[in-house]
Amino acid sequence: MKFKLLITAAALVALAGTATAQVKPEDAIKWRQSGYAFMAWNMTRIKMNVEGAAYNKDEVIKAANAIQAVANSGMGALYLPGTDTGTGWEKTRVKPELWTNKETLGKVATAFGKEANEMAKVAAAGDAAATKEQFGKLAATCKGCHDEFKIKQ
Amino acid sequence: MKFKLLITAAALVALAGTATAQVKPEDAIKWRQSGYAFMAWNMTRIKMNVEGAAYNKDEVIKAANAIQAVANSGMGALYLPGTDTGTGWEKTRVKPELWTNKETLGKVATAFGKEANEMAKVAAAGDAAATKEQFGKLAATCKGCHDEFKIKQ
Repeated sequence: MKFKLLITAAALVALAGTATAQVKPEDAIKWRQSGYAFMAWNMTRIKMNVEGAAYNKDEVIKAANAIQAVANSGMGALYLPGTDTGTGWEKTRVKPELWTNKETLGKVATAFGKEANEMAKVAAAGDAAATKEQFGKLAATCKGCHDEFKIKQ
Repeated sequence: MKFKLLITAAALVALAGTATAQVKPEDAIKWRQSGYAFMAWNMTRIKMNVEGAAYNKDEVIKAANAIQAVANSGMGALYLPGTDTGTGWEKTRVKPELWTNKETLGKVATAFGKEANEMAKVAAAGDAAATKEQFGKLAATCKGCHDEFKIKQ
């Protein structure tokens, strides 16, 4: 146990120079779970607007801007060494492949960022049909990452 | 118990026309806890940058933009009737005064939004000392709301 902690500490020291160096693994896990859950709220809001009877342009813009900001916040920094297991709000469901399959990770992360930025642009324009189409593209990138890197419940 | 559920349902129906009408209370609590925890990460990042040896302008901008988007996302919609008690990620710590002291709520919410928007502007300019000063102002508005409406642990 002590040895494992030392390895983790060494891995964290390797990150010195970035602000993440001082972050506790359980906080990193909690914060990334929070980012995803916060996006889930905003995805739900957009979904309700494009599938419901009424389209509230302002609410969709707020939701899309929130998702865009989370997508561009650099959450990759929360996948610190030592956070492949552990508990934040709940036990992490990340797969070990996230740390080994860098090529796929890069692809799904890039796709998500691209569609999240596009979602904000489309929302700002205020066309419900275009928003619905872009919402589908964005949701597909969420699923694409979950399929690769999130353990199913 | 049935009567209480009926009241809650009636209160939710009163919100019809907004997308929040279909949201489960436990999801609303989880999502607002996620918004605050996600902001806590970003506040921590700014703090580490203004108090640490190195100032990473890009990281501070990302963090400030994330906080700004959460602040402007309309999280008030997550304080649905029936969410004064209940459990999201954990038991809610909201005080009942949030639903009764509207005047104070308006003041603290407005102050938070103002300082979060200003934080993003100051971060974009990239001056470490100004960022530190604005970070203090923003943090004070977080505390101002917690003092009024969050149960201490």
